[in-house]
Amino acid sequence: MANKRILIVGGVAGGATCAARIRRLCEHCEIIIFEMGSYVSFANCGLPYFIGDVIVEEDKLLVATPELFKNRFNIQVCTDSQVTSINRADKSIVVNDLLNDQSRIEHYDALVLSTGASAVWPEIEGIDLPGIYALRTIPDSRKIRSALDKIKHAVVMGAGYLGLELAENLKKRGIEVTLLQSSNQLMPTLDKEMASYVEKHLKEKGINCRLNSKVTAFQQNPDQSLELIIKNSDAITADAVMISIGVKPRIELAEQAGLDIGEHGGVRVNEHMQTSDENIWAVGDMVEVRHVITNEWHLFPLAGPANRQGRLAAAHIVGHEFAGASTNMSYRGVQGTSVCGLFDLTIATTGVNEKQLKAAAYTQYEKVYLHPSNHVGYYPGAKPIHMKLIYDTTNGKILGAQALGEAGVARRIDVISSFIQMNATVYDLEEAELCYAPQFGATKDPVNLAGMLAANQLRDNHPLAKWEELMDSHVHVVDSEDQDEADQLLSLILEDPYNQAQIVDVRTVAEFENKHIPNAINVPLDSLRERLDELSREREVWVVCGVGQRAYNATRILQQNGFHVKNLSGGMQTYHSYLE
Amino acid sequence: MANKRILIVGGVAGGATCAARIRRLCEHCEIIIFEMGSYVSFANCGLPYFIGDVIVEEDKLLVATPELFKNRFNIQVCTDSQVTSINRADKSIVVNDLLNDQSRIEHYDALVLSTGASAVWPEIEGIDLPGIYALRTIPDSRKIRSALDKIKHAVVMGAGYLGLELAENLKKRGIEVTLLQSSNQLMPTLDKEMASYVEKHLKEKGINCRLNSKVTAFQQNPDQSLELIIKNSDAITADAVMISIGVKPRIELAEQAGLDIGEHGGVRVNEHMQTSDENIWAVGDMVEVRHVITNEWHLFPLAGPANRQGRLAAAHIVGHEFAGASTNMSYRGVQGTSVCGLFDLTIATTGVNEKQLKAAAYTQYEKVYLHPSNHVGYYPGAKPIHMKLIYDTTNGKILGAQALGEAGVARRIDVISSFIQMNATVYDLEEAELCYAPQFGATKDPVNLAGMLAANQLRDNHPLAKWEELMDSHVHVVDSEDQDEADQLLSLILEDPYNQAQIVDVRTVAEFENKHIPNAINVPLDSLRERLDELSREREVWVVCGVGQRAYNATRILQQNGFHVKNLSGGMQTYHSYLE
Repeated sequence: MANKRILIVGGVAGGATCAARIRRLCEHCEIIIFEMGSYVSFANCGLPYFIGDVIVEEDKLLVATPELFKNRFNIQVCTDSQVTSINRADKSIVVNDLLNDQSRIEHYDALVLSTGASAVWPEIEGIDLPGIYALRTIPDSRKIRSALDKIKHAVVMGAGYLGLELAENLKKRGIEVTLLQSSNQLMPTLDKEMASYVEKHLKEKGINCRLNSKVTAFQQNPDQSLELIIKNSDAITADAVMISIGVKPRIELAEQAGLDIGEHGGVRVNEHMQTSDENIWAVGDMVEVRHVITNEWHLFPLAGPANRQGRLAAAHIVGHEFAGASTNMSYRGVQGTSVCGLFDLTIATTGVNEKQLKAAAYTQYEKVYLHPSNHVGYYPGAKPIHMKLIYDTTNGKILGAQALGEAGVARRIDVISSFIQMNATVYDLEEAELCYAPQFGATKDPVNLAGMLAANQLRDNHPLAKWEELMDSHVHVVDSEDQDEADQLLSLILEDPYNQAQIVDVRTVAEFENKHIPNAINVPLDSLRERLDELSREREVWVVCGVGQRAYNATRILQQNGFHVKNLSGGMQTYHSYLE
Repeated sequence: MANKRILIVGGVAGGATCAARIRRLCEHCEIIIFEMGSYVSFANCGLPYFIGDVIVEEDKLLVATPELFKNRFNIQVCTDSQVTSINRADKSIVVNDLLNDQSRIEHYDALVLSTGASAVWPEIEGIDLPGIYALRTIPDSRKIRSALDKIKHAVVMGAGYLGLELAENLKKRGIEVTLLQSSNQLMPTLDKEMASYVEKHLKEKGINCRLNSKVTAFQQNPDQSLELIIKNSDAITADAVMISIGVKPRIELAEQAGLDIGEHGGVRVNEHMQTSDENIWAVGDMVEVRHVITNEWHLFPLAGPANRQGRLAAAHIVGHEFAGASTNMSYRGVQGTSVCGLFDLTIATTGVNEKQLKAAAYTQYEKVYLHPSNHVGYYPGAKPIHMKLIYDTTNGKILGAQALGEAGVARRIDVISSFIQMNATVYDLEEAELCYAPQFGATKDPVNLAGMLAANQLRDNHPLAKWEELMDSHVHVVDSEDQDEADQLLSLILEDPYNQAQIVDVRTVAEFENKHIPNAINVPLDSLRERLDELSREREVWVVCGVGQRAYNATRILQQNGFHVKNLSGGMQTYHSYLE
């Protein structure tokens, strides 16, 4: 079988990696890549930054060329070559050369599908008008770049990773940007209260965010600009619209071949990335993968998993010829680790968020919020990281984490992601031995702190109140600028004071006076022991401070003095994120 | 037992953390801290940066004050109070108030020792001359700061973390700095070849490094400057000398009390940080801890472990009163994770280094070198990370990692540290799902790459050559500026060409001509398949390239064509680190 013939459909990310890996494992196989587009192995994650002129030269985006594949890997690359059908019975494909529209048949011993995903193109009236773009390829980016001079105002539709990156890069080119999102939050990978930090940051950077905004039609104005008709809201005039509402697996070929397709519209594969046909493998954005936390099938169209899947498929394709190659090579599923840079902010997540747990009816979980600095405060330049850690209350297993901040964010999420991979618990986070020097962290790193807060809760010495219950009581910050409204709210609240809980704010008098939860009582932590008599032992006490630390100390004092006490995790910082 | 009396000796790091944690777990205990110095809970890790004026205000170094302990934690702090003896029989200590030299007896139910470590003060003639300093306390730093104006040239003796930080900070104050190290490398936590990057960086920053330099005497010159007499070398004239050759546990009190002391001179404790006396605990720099990799006793005087040990001891001290408090609280040992910032460079390590493995006669290990960028090269500003990963060849378990670079270093070491904590293998590193976006990493993160290189070696498709064997053959770079020497070396080498191995350099002709290993043959990777006949199948082929990646591809080609081939891991980058 030295001359096994392996055909690969799709030459970006997973397909390209798979091809190179097959060559390394099998010097004498015949390997051919068919790519519909004109480029292989290009850096699609870099396209928004090419729009923003952060990446200036288009050549930089070409990670590998057909020549490199030929010379280095002895792999033939056919660009502008669309595979139009698979004949599984005689193990062949039909390839159409797009340059001369000639079709031919190619036979395979093994076939790898890596056809990726395409932009979801909404079915809206006027969607085909000029000035409406999607960004998936180098030619797409070229088209947008060449139009930039004429764009004064752009609308970005969809506030996922790509949408946010596009918004930033267009803004950096001096374009006024409006970000439209049909749902009630930006960045669906985050929970809503965490996404509020993103919205705040975008506003600070001069980007107009419109949530709950559904475009019902695009119209062309006489001056060639576009009019976006929004349901129940004002129309928007823009010179360009970027569609970034998501991607969907390209599965036409897999469907035609009758391969198993999953519930989310991706190709189903086993842990070796093998499809329902034993001679056909599939990798990357086109496949469904199991989520390691929920064990449910997911689409997770990111470049990292695509590359690792391509590498893994290669080992199994040649595995029976080279036994050692596939040792410990089974796909473990995805964890949902991702990161996004947005102006000064880094936003990263791993594992599941609370929305996903609720959707899966998973109830045995708890969450902690914290706002530690990326490094000790006494070293100049410390920046806060806003973190949420979700864990299983039955065994302490880490389920997910979300973090935002200006520095050190990816590092903490990478660490938590590594722990999740190893099926670790919050007790493991407590004991993590991480890099510490004053400019790099703290003796209790943010990761340690997250673990400690959660472990304390599990050890029953850190009971947690539910922000949702507080917020459901229609709470707003008492805003001294509008005393009438404040009074009105206060009277509403007095009728139903947070399900009978007393809110005790243990910050200083000055902090309290600046802004506080309506109806909260101010008892600064350092005088709490002397003022216990002011609090009722009949009602629950919910303690709040700036970020949760003083309130934790107060919780401990009150709990040991016989109070029914709970901490409002994350303090006023988290309160504001819920409020916004 | 509501009024259990807990005395803590030493109020920095471990002691302070322990005290606060005891209070949180036990509101009604009596807690007293005795601190020999005038400050508690100060940031000793910040002291070099206070010297360097990076931290400008001394107040910033005071993490907590006696007032805060009193008001917030109801903990009494006695500063300037030296505990001079322990009477275990009646559970009491003798405290000497240093301000009035009065002694008193204090009884305890539980005693916590957190007396830290003191600077090793070498026994050298003239060591007590003025101008010779150690930096352990705020008064020490004040003394040095006040002398800075008069210092033109300072010698830093000892090139561990503190020595390097001091060298940087003194240099930043405009002082000429000479770094003296008695051994043959800087930074003993690194392996020698990795430490060469540190030396190179220091030279670029204008710091004079002198290795293998033993001071035999200090003398005072008539102008008050110091003369350092160096064994077998020129003397050095300096205005000040900073002693940073290490620290030793302060165990006088523990010794006097007859507590078990370990082989490295630290107090022996169990996994609850309890000493050989069940009523006495010890934490921080003064104790010996087990290394998680070697299971051997170690001294590991770092702030992170000290804080976690203090927290853990607290749980066990009050544990029998509050059962849940000590759930999952057993000390797991240290991993050796540490980080150091040095001008533009970050240096971080975790696990064991090769020197430690050799000392422990641990032979079943292998190592890979790599030099990936902190993020994809097509995004501007990518910086190389020089990494070494060490792993067990019997089971793939990760044993240790060392990394240096300008960005993203602590992040990768933190990730590997987390995996080590979970007893992970290099196969786990391969599959790590880490944050990727162009400005944050790569689809194959440096951590993935390290795992892949190692796993490939274990799967027998990436055999590794030994740099040590190459270097033992007296190899030097052919330096065209000195053709005579080169010729002479070449003739030496031709007699014993690397134990008969052929060195094949697969870089381009231009790269090869710039600099290469003497006697290497240049066969650029992209022409290797056509030039196989030029290589001997009788001798081993050792392949080298720039950083190891092309050589890996060449290794695969050669292995499958029947050659006995090995990769020189890390390429010419690593060659230079061995050479220097």
